[in-house]
Amino acid sequence: MTDLLIRNAIVVTSDSAGSVIHDGAVAVEGTRISAVGTAADLAPLAERARRVVDGTGHILMPGIINTHCHAADSLFRGLVEDLPLEPWLQTVWKAEAAILNPRTSHLGSVLGFAELLLSGVTSVMDMFWYPSETVRAARKVGLRVSTGGIFFDPAGVTALSIDERVAEAERFFEEFGSADDVFAAVMPHGTYTVGPENLKAAHAVSHKCGGIFCTHCAETKAEQADIVARYGRTVVRHLDHLGCLDARTVLAHCVHLDDEELDILAARGAHVAHNPMSNLKLASGFARVPEMLERGINVTLGTDGPISGNDLDMWMALRLAATIHKGHTGRAEIISTRQALDMLTINGAKALGAADRIGSLEKGKLADMVMVDLRRPHAVPMFDPLTHLVYSANKSDVRHVFLGGEQVVRDGTLTRLDIGETMDEVNALVPKIRASIA
Amino acid sequence: MTDLLIRNAIVVTSDSAGSVIHDGAVAVEGTRISAVGTAADLAPLAERARRVVDGTGHILMPGIINTHCHAADSLFRGLVEDLPLEPWLQTVWKAEAAILNPRTSHLGSVLGFAELLLSGVTSVMDMFWYPSETVRAARKVGLRVSTGGIFFDPAGVTALSIDERVAEAERFFEEFGSADDVFAAVMPHGTYTVGPENLKAAHAVSHKCGGIFCTHCAETKAEQADIVARYGRTVVRHLDHLGCLDARTVLAHCVHLDDEELDILAARGAHVAHNPMSNLKLASGFARVPEMLERGINVTLGTDGPISGNDLDMWMALRLAATIHKGHTGRAEIISTRQALDMLTINGAKALGAADRIGSLEKGKLADMVMVDLRRPHAVPMFDPLTHLVYSANKSDVRHVFLGGEQVVRDGTLTRLDIGETMDEVNALVPKIRASIA
Repeated sequence: MTDLLIRNAIVVTSDSAGSVIHDGAVAVEGTRISAVGTAADLAPLAERARRVVDGTGHILMPGIINTHCHAADSLFRGLVEDLPLEPWLQTVWKAEAAILNPRTSHLGSVLGFAELLLSGVTSVMDMFWYPSETVRAARKVGLRVSTGGIFFDPAGVTALSIDERVAEAERFFEEFGSADDVFAAVMPHGTYTVGPENLKAAHAVSHKCGGIFCTHCAETKAEQADIVARYGRTVVRHLDHLGCLDARTVLAHCVHLDDEELDILAARGAHVAHNPMSNLKLASGFARVPEMLERGINVTLGTDGPISGNDLDMWMALRLAATIHKGHTGRAEIISTRQALDMLTINGAKALGAADRIGSLEKGKLADMVMVDLRRPHAVPMFDPLTHLVYSANKSDVRHVFLGGEQVVRDGTLTRLDIGETMDEVNALVPKIRASIA
Repeated sequence: MTDLLIRNAIVVTSDSAGSVIHDGAVAVEGTRISAVGTAADLAPLAERARRVVDGTGHILMPGIINTHCHAADSLFRGLVEDLPLEPWLQTVWKAEAAILNPRTSHLGSVLGFAELLLSGVTSVMDMFWYPSETVRAARKVGLRVSTGGIFFDPAGVTALSIDERVAEAERFFEEFGSADDVFAAVMPHGTYTVGPENLKAAHAVSHKCGGIFCTHCAETKAEQADIVARYGRTVVRHLDHLGCLDARTVLAHCVHLDDEELDILAARGAHVAHNPMSNLKLASGFARVPEMLERGINVTLGTDGPISGNDLDMWMALRLAATIHKGHTGRAEIISTRQALDMLTINGAKALGAADRIGSLEKGKLADMVMVDLRRPHAVPMFDPLTHLVYSANKSDVRHVFLGGEQVVRDGTLTRLDIGETMDEVNALVPKIRASIA
C-alpha cells in the first residue's frame, strides 16, 4: 500500500550514478521509499495511494545532512564578534557557563533545529552539553540527530569527572543506540580540551558500542602549534597515535593539515566535516578540500554553530564549498557541481554510517525528502537541476520537507510545533545572556 | 503633509555616524524623506499621515545598491559552468550573439531586476547591450539604474562603429541625463576589448556629459598579463595613462593589483566594485579589499551577472565581503561589520555620485527603503542589528521595499508587474538558448 506518492517533480536522487529523473516520482510505504521512477512508471500506484502530492515546478531531493553543528548555541548568535577563534571561544564559554542548563540547552536546540529543518536539513550531527536534551529537541522539531556523550576536561557547563562522562556516554547508547532517528556517537570536544587518556576512554566507548567518534580537529594554526608543543605531534598524528582514527571517526574542520596528515586520514577512512562559513568568519582559513577529494577522503558539510555563522544555512555551506576552493586555487574546475552536491547529501550519510538508510532517494531508504520550489526569478531559466541547486537555490526555496514520509515542513512552516513560542522564550532570555559577558 | 510614516522599526540609517534608532520612525513627503527619529519624536505626524506602516519586528534600512551587474544575462544562468573566465566568456558571447536583441535583452533585464528588487536592491549599475532597454526594464520593475552607452571593439551583439557608439552614448545622456531614476554612465567593456583611442573617446563622452565612467578592471591574472603584453603597462596604469581614472570612475573587480596600483586608485578617487561571488566561482581570486579600505578607496559591492553567480544576491555579496577576507588573511578583525554594511549602501551611492540622494536614511534623501523581517528563527536572538544584517539576514527576509516612497515590493511580491509572465516568456526561450552553444 502506497502511503505517499510525489509525482511530476524533477527528482535529484543523489544515487551513485547521480541520476536525475525529469518528470519523476517517488512512492513511500510507511517510513521507507518503495519506488523511484518516472511519473509514468509510478502512475499505477496513484489510484490506491493514501496521498498524492503534485511536484510540478519543484525539485525533489534527499534531505540535507549537516555533519557539524552546535544548534543550541543559537542562544548566543551574534553575541561575540570580530575575534579569532581562541579569544572568541573563551568569551563564548563564559556565556555558556552562565546560561546553560538542561532547560535552556533544550530551548536553544529547538530554535536551531527549527532553522535547520525549515531549510531542508533532516539529519544533523550536533555536539552539545546535554545530549538527551538534544535528542528530545530534535524529536520535537522533526529531524534525525547524531549526538552523544561529551568529553571535556575543564569543568565546562556540566562539570563531570571522567568516570561520570564515560558512564553518561554509555547510558546514551543504552537509551538511544537502537533508535532509527538517532545516530549515537561519542563526542570528545578536541585534542586541546581533552587529554590523551580521556580521548582513549571516549574512543573505547564508541568502539565498544558501535557508535561514531566525533571531535574538532586542526581548526586553526594555533591549535596545531599547541598540540605539537604539548605532545610533539600534530593533531591528526596525535589522534592516530591514540588509535582514534578509523571509519567511524568524523573530524570537524581539518583546516590545517600537511600532506602526510591527509594521507593518514585517507588510510584510516576517517570522514571530514567541512565548515566553510565558520572557517571564513573566524579567520581559520581554507581546508584543503580538493586534495582531500583527490585522496578519496569522504568530505561532508556542516554549518558549525550559529555563533560562528551566524546562521545555520547548509545552502550557504554548499555554495561556499563549491566556490571558495575555486577562488583559493585559481582553478574553476577544482570542485564539480556533483562533488559539491554529494557533500550535502550522500557523503553526510556515509559519515553517519547510515548510507544504507539516508542520503539519497533510492528504494528501501528512509523517505527523508525535500521539495525545492522552482517558481522563483533566480530559478529561471534552469539548464541543469544540479547546477541550480549548487549555484542558485537557497534555503527559502525549500517549501516542503518529509521525514520518514511524514510531512514536517508544509509551505515553509513547521508542522510539529509553533516556533513563535520558542522565539518568544528565547527573546525573554536576552537581557540575561547579554549580561553574562558584561 | 506626510505621505508615509513607518514607525516602531529598528531604523538602521547608514548615516556617517552609523546611527541605529531602536523604536525608530521615518516620514516621507512625496518621494523624499522628511524626518527620521524615534517613533515618539515622529508621533505627531501620524494623525495626518496618508499612510502609517507598523514596522514592529522589522529593521528599516536604506535600499541596497548593486554597483556591478549584467542583469539580462539571466537568460544564460547556468548555461556554461566550471570554466575559468576567458574560455567561459567566449562561450557566453556566442550565446549572447545568437539570442540577444532589444526584445530579449529587455526580457532578461526584467527578470534580473525583479530578482534584485525582491531582495531589496533599489539602485543597480548595469552594463548591457541596449542601454535604453535596460532603463525601460528598470522602470517597469521599479528600481533606479546606472547604465549608458557600451563600448566594445569586436562586433559583439550590437556591431556598431566607434562613431556610432559615441553617438549612442551621447544620445543616452540627452534622453536620461536629468532623470532622477537614472545615473547616466558610459560603459566601455574593458581594456582587453576596447583599444586606447576608443577608451579615451568613451571617457571624453562621460567627462563632457558629467556622467560615470565604468569598466571592468584587472579581474584575472591573464587579463593583467594580456594588457602588459599589449601596452607595456598593467591595467590600472594603462587606464591612468589614458586619463580615464578620476572620482567619476567605477572599476569592476580589481582583483589583481599591486601596491602602486592601489595607490593610484586612491590618489584618483576611483571607486572599486567588489564582486566576491563571481571572483570565487570563476576562480579569479581575492580582491585586496582590506588594503583598499586602508588606503581610503571607496569599495562597493556587486553581484556581477547571474551567469557568474548564478543568482543576483547582494546579501550573499555582503556576507562574502565580510568573511572571505578574514579567511584569506587569517585576521578576524580585518573587515568590520560596519565597513561591510557601508559597502552595501552608502559606498554604492558615492560611486554613483549620488550620496546626496540615496544610500542612507536621512532627511532630504529619496525614500528608498527596505523592511527586513525579524520574525525568523535565524533572527533570534538579536544582540546587534548591524551584525544581524551582515551575518544572519538573507534575501528572503526582505518583506517590503519602497522606491521614492512608492511601495514596489509588498509581502515579498512585486507590485508593478506579475513576474510569472516574465518567467513563462523566458522559459519559452530555453530550447533556443540551449541550442545556441550546441
